[in-house]
Amino acid sequence: MEAKRLITSLFLIIILSLSSVEPTKKIRARNPCKRLVFYFHDILYNGKNAENATSAIVGAPAWGNTTILAGQSHFGNVVVFDDPITLDNNLHSTPVGRAQGFYLYDKKDIFTSWLGFSFVFNSTGHKGSINFAGADPLMNKTRDISVIGGTGDFFMARGIATLMTDAFEGEVYFRLCVDIKLYECW
Amino acid sequence: MEAKRLITSLFLIIILSLSSVEPTKKIRARNPCKRLVFYFHDILYNGKNAENATSAIVGAPAWGNTTILAGQSHFGNVVVFDDPITLDNNLHSTPVGRAQGFYLYDKKDIFTSWLGFSFVFNSTGHKGSINFAGADPLMNKTRDISVIGGTGDFFMARGIATLMTDAFEGEVYFRLCVDIKLYECW
Amino acid sequence: MEAKRLITSLFLIIILSLSSVEPTKKIRARNPCKRLVFYFHDILYNGKNAENATSAIVGAPAWGNTTILAGQSHFGNVVVFDDPITLDNNLHSTPVGRAQGFYLYDKKDIFTSWLGFSFVFNSTGHKGSINFAGADPLMNKTRDISVIGGTGDFFMARGIATLMTDAFEGEVYFRLCVDIKLYECW
Repeated sequence: MEAKRLITSLFLIIILSLSSVEPTKKIRARNPCKRLVFYFHDILYNGKNAENATSAIVGAPAWGNTTILAGQSHFGNVVVFDDPITLDNNLHSTPVGRAQGFYLYDKKDIFTSWLGFSFVFNSTGHKGSINFAGADPLMNKTRDISVIGGTGDFFMARGIATLMTDAFEGEVYFRLCVDIKLYECW
Repeated sequence: MEAKRLITSLFLIIILSLSSVEPTKKIRARNPCKRLVFYFHDILYNGKNAENATSAIVGAPAWGNTTILAGQSHFGNVVVFDDPITLDNNLHSTPVGRAQGFYLYDKKDIFTSWLGFSFVFNSTGHKGSINFAGADPLMNKTRDISVIGGTGDFFMARGIATLMTDAFEGEVYFRLCVDIKLYECW
Repeated sequence: MEAKRLITSLFLIIILSLSSVEPTKKIRARNPCKRLVFYFHDILYNGKNAENATSAIVGAPAWGNTTILAGQSHFGNVVVFDDPITLDNNLHSTPVGRAQGFYLYDKKDIFTSWLGFSFVFNSTGHKGSINFAGADPLMNKTRDISVIGGTGDFFMARGIATLMTDAFEGEVYFRLCVDIKLYECW
């Protein structure tokens, strides 16, 4: 009798656990299923460095232009980039991919930006892309943006990328360290 | 014997339910795990309101400029913004965060836009960001865009944000009500 | 006794399987839960085709302008579009929706672009939107971008969209075939 009752309640539990409706609130482990660290290097076109530039101003507010970053914390400048990605912080290391997309400066009284871009890989190490979007309050030591998707080796990826400004030289060069933590891997 | 057979079939069911391959089709509950309502306020720079403006035209088609929104339903205008977020519909209420990013007008014969932006919070109430993207057919009473990610308190968030134009004054000011419904919470 | 031990171990297994903490690494089936194929048609404004144009250059680098695509693989050009979506490759077929958003050219030595856009449907066939973002290395036969969200019929969608250039005519017209594979359906 005891066994039978146990089995009956087991059945009930199993049926509940098999229910195809997922609970809306669940606690999920916050351990990344994949973690990657890269650097990327941005050399902004300033009218004199066409050879080396990897990015260019393509949008500006009424009070700005597309050769020099505008006043007011560059508010309104839109920059398109194709930056080399490296494994270490050396601009001259062999790139393992390209960071491609745009950023824009969006605040008048302090440096903040908004980013939409991809890491594009096509090497023996990685094939595919990781797509990013989010706000980047530049003056903070670390800033988190979202990994909104991925393709190839990063099929359907989601996660967080922590950005750190590793170096900058005036308004021409900056280097970001990107610590990518994926929490959804397929 | 009966008990043994039951236990065997239980095992089979459990093994199936433990299978690490998720079914591709599943019905999920459409109850938000978090819901938040905010207002944000956009004051567009028009050449005369530098003090108060929270946004500026930074891209325009060949027939437009960056001081006045272009004809043809503003088709081609790109606007960068840093707008205050408030809990009620009063522009002068204490902001609880900033809405930062861009929108662009993308249709010649009617007002529609496309948005990429973040809500950035850094207060006792909320810390972190929510990232949004999607089409905004402005003339509809309610429009749905996607919550594509989040950080901090909104770590890994996904969901839907319903936009409603709460007020607008000519081409200088508009106020949006944003009803954020998260369906993935971590 | 045997039955009791079995039942005890069953309980343990069930408790583990019911644990609300999801494993971070799991293998998921890569079968789309929804698949859709569409074409969309882009006619770029070139100063002479105002009537037919569906897109316009709205951003350009210092060496470019908003009427003609810039040299250096159009690096830095930003284009806003509102393109008809059709079920077949005929530009004159009845549109089933609109592709709305932007693309930008982001490489000096080869044609590559970055896209942020939505498919907007409001017909008997489909209601709602699908939101896309990602890098598009135009010279490849097929390119994968991310489906980062959806609304309406495509509520909370995630997946991959494979882009193929189906035709192009100089710098004025191109047609893309988009093979949408959703792996998360609600």
